[in-house]
Amino acid sequence: MFSSIKAARTPSNTNVLRRCFSQGYQLKKSQATGVVFMNMGGPSTVEETHDFLYQLFADNDLIPINKRFQPLIAKYIAKFRTPKIEQQYKEIGGGSPIRKWSEYQSSRVCKMLDEISPETKPHYPYVAFRYAKPLTDETYQKMLDDGITRAVALTQYQQFSYSTTGSSINELWRQVKKLDPNRSIVWSTIDRWPSNKGLVDAFVTNITKKLSEFPENIRDKVVILFSSHSLPMDVVNTGDAYPAEVAATVYQIMTKLKFKNPYRLTWQSQVGPKPWLGAQTLAISKFLSGMDSSKIPGICLVPVSFTSDHIETLHEVDIGMIEESEYKDKLKRCNSLNESELLTKGLAEMVRDHLKSGELYSKQLPLDYILGKSSDPADLEQLFGDHRKDKN
Amino acid sequence: MFSSIKAARTPSNTNVLRRCFSQGYQLKKSQATGVVFMNMGGPSTVEETHDFLYQLFADNDLIPINKRFQPLIAKYIAKFRTPKIEQQYKEIGGGSPIRKWSEYQSSRVCKMLDEISPETKPHYPYVAFRYAKPLTDETYQKMLDDGITRAVALTQYQQFSYSTTGSSINELWRQVKKLDPNRSIVWSTIDRWPSNKGLVDAFVTNITKKLSEFPENIRDKVVILFSSHSLPMDVVNTGDAYPAEVAATVYQIMTKLKFKNPYRLTWQSQVGPKPWLGAQTLAISKFLSGMDSSKIPGICLVPVSFTSDHIETLHEVDIGMIEESEYKDKLKRCNSLNESELLTKGLAEMVRDHLKSGELYSKQLPLDYILGKSSDPADLEQLFGDHRKDKN
Repeated sequence: MFSSIKAARTPSNTNVLRRCFSQGYQLKKSQATGVVFMNMGGPSTVEETHDFLYQLFADNDLIPINKRFQPLIAKYIAKFRTPKIEQQYKEIGGGSPIRKWSEYQSSRVCKMLDEISPETKPHYPYVAFRYAKPLTDETYQKMLDDGITRAVALTQYQQFSYSTTGSSINELWRQVKKLDPNRSIVWSTIDRWPSNKGLVDAFVTNITKKLSEFPENIRDKVVILFSSHSLPMDVVNTGDAYPAEVAATVYQIMTKLKFKNPYRLTWQSQVGPKPWLGAQTLAISKFLSGMDSSKIPGICLVPVSFTSDHIETLHEVDIGMIEESEYKDKLKRCNSLNESELLTKGLAEMVRDHLKSGELYSKQLPLDYILGKSSDPADLEQLFGDHRKDKN
Repeated sequence: MFSSIKAARTPSNTNVLRRCFSQGYQLKKSQATGVVFMNMGGPSTVEETHDFLYQLFADNDLIPINKRFQPLIAKYIAKFRTPKIEQQYKEIGGGSPIRKWSEYQSSRVCKMLDEISPETKPHYPYVAFRYAKPLTDETYQKMLDDGITRAVALTQYQQFSYSTTGSSINELWRQVKKLDPNRSIVWSTIDRWPSNKGLVDAFVTNITKKLSEFPENIRDKVVILFSSHSLPMDVVNTGDAYPAEVAATVYQIMTKLKFKNPYRLTWQSQVGPKPWLGAQTLAISKFLSGMDSSKIPGICLVPVSFTSDHIETLHEVDIGMIEESEYKDKLKRCNSLNESELLTKGLAEMVRDHLKSGELYSKQLPLDYILGKSSDPADLEQLFGDHRKDKN
């Protein structure tokens, strides 16, 4: 694991640092740029499952129940659900690969940034998870120890939801107040990137590759079934940006694929009794795969709101939708972006452009915060931009 | 009203026809291309309101209740709702302008087509409404009388829903079987066009114009509130294509506007007790307009799933959301596309490309028909393409 710069430092990063030091720079005074990948995270080992679930159910931005009772309720639900979820993590190899991929991607992005954005180098990769290690406070402390003075909070959720990216930004603000009251780090954020060129290219490449595994005579009739993490209708009905941004990503991908296959956007991972946004991936996948092969000869499942594998792809899709299907020969899943160079190139260029533009956050973010429900929201104007007490 | 080619014939169309005839063509034998604008329609006069409502509530594709009792229930609801809806049509000038605009747009499109697609001319404009005059049967009879042998069913719903475009296609199939059993007209369809260049350009132009009516110092902070006709969650959960295609249109528009304003996609016109797709336009509009002007200085409402004015813009938005708002000074509505030359140019080019491609329908349509619920669906393979009994 290499979430601190010490471990993540690649040979060329080390050289950069060495050059910095040899030129008399103090890291404390340097313009080192931290690039922080924010995500919900997942337990890297089975043993971390309980704590992960507790953090998740204790998040009032994700599950806006009575805040006073939430820790107790979270404790209860986490305890109750742990055995089942532990079993799922065992079945996918003993933990979530999300930390591995987040660290890999952030490290690649920083390496590229050193090349394409020399004016903001060196760039140091960090990962800050909302519910798993490394949590935001641990990462923030490392950044302070590393002497970072400028950082980009880069959401790994390419489409903005107040319950995902919003929750991460709110947590960042709490840690700023706690760990960095003198504001030694100047923050900005990339809060969404649903049409990032690298993202779209990476999906197009992976989908094309997966489609090529279907026989040529049926390939153009295979349904591309995009699957995105669903949201409760409660959240959708606040005006959350997420459903429309996911649809935007899907449309960009299909445009590049020249709409040569039928496709549909569906939603997965619904839990609990309340209504969530549909159509549900599992229901549509079951319905379509059961149809006569002359109508539906195959289905290519594409998880479209994740940038790497985790339990929703490796267990919910691969096992729950494919392995356990009566028609598993008809079903394939498009590879996740994981080590995609197209993705990391797209991200690096986006961070370069962001740093060049001087933008602190998107035009959408304040509106997301007006519409989103939180008992402890970030103050965007106070969080982002230069608030250093000591500006020397 | 000029829904038949006789009335719609513009001076240059007349010339085209004259040239055709002077060159010895028989209209019956000609390769005249009918371009049929399909839409739900609206009562052109207040008196037509009852019949419009009856047709609407009797549509089993739109309201999939027990088919046996539907005529009775439709009769009852139409009678019950007529006074209220009549009043609304009175308040917007005595009827829906949708027929006027549909006829205008189809006529303009055909005129342009005669110029840019000479190999398929002459082109004759038609309008076929699902619930108002001219209904599909009336239009179909006119087309037969006019000697049309090739026709494009062009949906005016730029984003596909099985309950709108699907319903129109199903009705077309019923009329083909009834009025044209020998299949003298060869049909194809343009079943969706959410990212049509002319459509996007027209919205961008109209939004920019409307934003310019806000004071310059607040212009970039005005929220662009896109509003689309909602769907019941029952329909959304079948995997209906509509929500994602509307989001695609919105994203294309915002991309051309360089995301310089905050925006959000919301949904209007929900009726009845069942859950519909939100967030609801009225709720979000009320919430945002009530906020301090430093946060939300203005709102520009943009009806994004209609190509012209009708009751949902002129009454529901203009009166229900703006006129009756406490904060009406903050609210403006973007003009509908109505007479937009950008729109008609985009449509004409799309029809030209469609005719050139030989495509009968989109790659998506068969999937829409697999997922959509209808007690009397069209047979797409039998409806579209060349099924003439007499192929001379």
